[in-house]
Amino acid sequence: MTDQRAVPPWAPVVGMVGAGQLARMTYQASIPLGVGLRVLAAEPGDSAAQVCPGVQLGDYTDLDDLLTFAAGCDVVTFDHEHVPGPLLTTLEEAAAVIRPGAGALRFTQDKLAMRERLTALGVPCPRYAPAVVPGDVEAFAADSGWPVVLKAVRGGYDGKGVWVCGTPEQAAEVLAHWPVKPGGPEPGDPDHGAAVIVEEHVRFDRELAALVARSPHNQGAAYPVVQTVQRDGVCHEVLAPAPGLSVARAREADRLALELAAKLEVTGLLAVELFETPGGLLVNELAMRPHNSGHWTIEGARTSQFEQHLRAVLDLPLGDPTAVTTQVVMANVFGGSGLASTDPDIYARYTHVMAADPAVKVHLYGKTARPGRKIGHVTVLPNRALGDDIDALRERAGRAARYLGEGKD
Amino acid sequence: MTDQRAVPPWAPVVGMVGAGQLARMTYQASIPLGVGLRVLAAEPGDSAAQVCPGVQLGDYTDLDDLLTFAAGCDVVTFDHEHVPGPLLTTLEEAAAVIRPGAGALRFTQDKLAMRERLTALGVPCPRYAPAVVPGDVEAFAADSGWPVVLKAVRGGYDGKGVWVCGTPEQAAEVLAHWPVKPGGPEPGDPDHGAAVIVEEHVRFDRELAALVARSPHNQGAAYPVVQTVQRDGVCHEVLAPAPGLSVARAREADRLALELAAKLEVTGLLAVELFETPGGLLVNELAMRPHNSGHWTIEGARTSQFEQHLRAVLDLPLGDPTAVTTQVVMANVFGGSGLASTDPDIYARYTHVMAADPAVKVHLYGKTARPGRKIGHVTVLPNRALGDDIDALRERAGRAARYLGEGKD
Repeated sequence: MTDQRAVPPWAPVVGMVGAGQLARMTYQASIPLGVGLRVLAAEPGDSAAQVCPGVQLGDYTDLDDLLTFAAGCDVVTFDHEHVPGPLLTTLEEAAAVIRPGAGALRFTQDKLAMRERLTALGVPCPRYAPAVVPGDVEAFAADSGWPVVLKAVRGGYDGKGVWVCGTPEQAAEVLAHWPVKPGGPEPGDPDHGAAVIVEEHVRFDRELAALVARSPHNQGAAYPVVQTVQRDGVCHEVLAPAPGLSVARAREADRLALELAAKLEVTGLLAVELFETPGGLLVNELAMRPHNSGHWTIEGARTSQFEQHLRAVLDLPLGDPTAVTTQVVMANVFGGSGLASTDPDIYARYTHVMAADPAVKVHLYGKTARPGRKIGHVTVLPNRALGDDIDALRERAGRAARYLGEGKD
Repeated sequence: MTDQRAVPPWAPVVGMVGAGQLARMTYQASIPLGVGLRVLAAEPGDSAAQVCPGVQLGDYTDLDDLLTFAAGCDVVTFDHEHVPGPLLTTLEEAAAVIRPGAGALRFTQDKLAMRERLTALGVPCPRYAPAVVPGDVEAFAADSGWPVVLKAVRGGYDGKGVWVCGTPEQAAEVLAHWPVKPGGPEPGDPDHGAAVIVEEHVRFDRELAALVARSPHNQGAAYPVVQTVQRDGVCHEVLAPAPGLSVARAREADRLALELAAKLEVTGLLAVELFETPGGLLVNELAMRPHNSGHWTIEGARTSQFEQHLRAVLDLPLGDPTAVTTQVVMANVFGGSGLASTDPDIYARYTHVMAADPAVKVHLYGKTARPGRKIGHVTVLPNRALGDDIDALRERAGRAARYLGEGKD
């Protein structure tokens, strides 16, 4: 810990486990609030560790590191869902205030537990089954048809740990290479006996995300429902609000997310990734932290998701989640294929992007630009000169993001 | 320096001399840009030093401290105008990149030099004269009438160093107590032979501020002109844009500020404080840094003044300065008279303010709450439920600011 308490004595200190871009942007939001934020980082060069003075270097799978970290914080929260469940339970037993708690976080760490709980709550989901041997997948597909989607029960993120399989052979290949839970079964954690689940391949019209916050006082706040545009399972673009979404469908999505937050006892943010299908909404994934689908809120909403997460985990009254404008587009910036890891040219490209569109908001995460790695995002809002036509906004955001990441127009 | 270069190798590093709230808010703006920001702070507890890892402790009147600081930065800029002019010149001679430069900054440090230069440029100002002995004031008042305004040529700020005098006796009293330039005359700096100037007491309708940015490439950008509401020479409220200001008058103010920025060779921000009088606009003061009258831009404009200052001093293309909404109100938060210096109750008041108005944006500077000390600000934007009526917005901002600072409604 390089800095124990660089905040006024009245100010609470939030500890965030993980020091990626979500922690970096949460740190930004902590500054005007005047509250403290510390991060548990793996490396001094981690995205948030570059900008936040309160850094503890440590391992989020090491109980001693977690206990030391929690001892210096009033509340502990997370920039990812990879802290092993038993360690979260131990932290709670050691009287650390963990928000969201171990009970809620389990549903972001174990996709089988999530599906079972959502099904028990009557929440519409894709059909699913645990899959241990290839025969499990074939039996499931006999009913749902091919292709099917295999998902790692644990450890998947951002397109990793998800496989669309068109044949029994492809499914057998996945099962052969993802045969046990990464890191092995966790002692004391309920083991479902499956490292993989199989799900129906949903024919959706598009993907939506509902983002809500819930505080320990049970206050809730819902952001406008957005459309997410994914490629290869990775979010590329977010359109806020989702264009053409009916009021009824938007209300349904927000109500679903608020009810889930209450029933799963989430404290902090809950992002619910949804499929919009001709038959209605289906829940795809859950996240209990600031989420890529909410980056647009930094400029586009009265209260950014990062401020909202801090307010929620501190049990402060939640902020106004309404949008400040009619339409916002966010596009992720990915490292291009031809770039050196240190990429000095990014600054020249950055200058071009700013010159080409003075209204584009650039967010860089301080990450070295490996091919395909998410290194930043851009946000575009309507303005008088350029208007709020969704296609024009997408064109502006997409061009800026591509040029920043790859140097290509 | 606790942290030499916690940014990617391509990113330039800006050094800001001074670590008050302006540097704190500039630091926030530097994070998404991905550029480095370091501060030269007097104390580790300074507002910006609390939140920024790149802190050098030092004295901004000490040449060695300034040279060491400048050596670690690509560009040096300022959170205040108190660095002695000869040191700025020496820094420039030592090849440090200083923005704004010593030549421009002089007009924010020496009110007599500023008045002389503005007069030479034909810019409308209040009538003024240097005042060394009481007879100088009486001679001036014989023409302009009483009261007159005395101003310290150097070292005044935020209502300090300005005296409204209704009688020759009051003026003599000021001259007796402000007889020489604070710190004595600066070697090598032109000495006007006066520590005080006398100005006519302008009967203005209201006070306005025009905020512009200028880059070394000579790109300019002007924010909407705002109204500032002062009490005892201290800014309490900013209304953006200035309500009811004619388009012609707004253009006149912006053109004046842009022309001044070019003619004074300002790089970075230039804030021009103006009197609106029945006879037209008069220039009151200049500042070449982020300014209290521009805090509303954090939420209220496409590009905040802090991001704009960084873009300007880095010679990046300037950002879009337009407002995101129809009307914004900013109110400063001052420490109340009954508060202990550490003030633990501020957190309870803070909670109340957030609960009472979820759309109010709270900015606290991490400063201990001495009576009358500026410790934060709040910003209020219109929303659907509460509307954009200027009186309602002022009421909301004023109530939040008073309650935060004093615990009074």
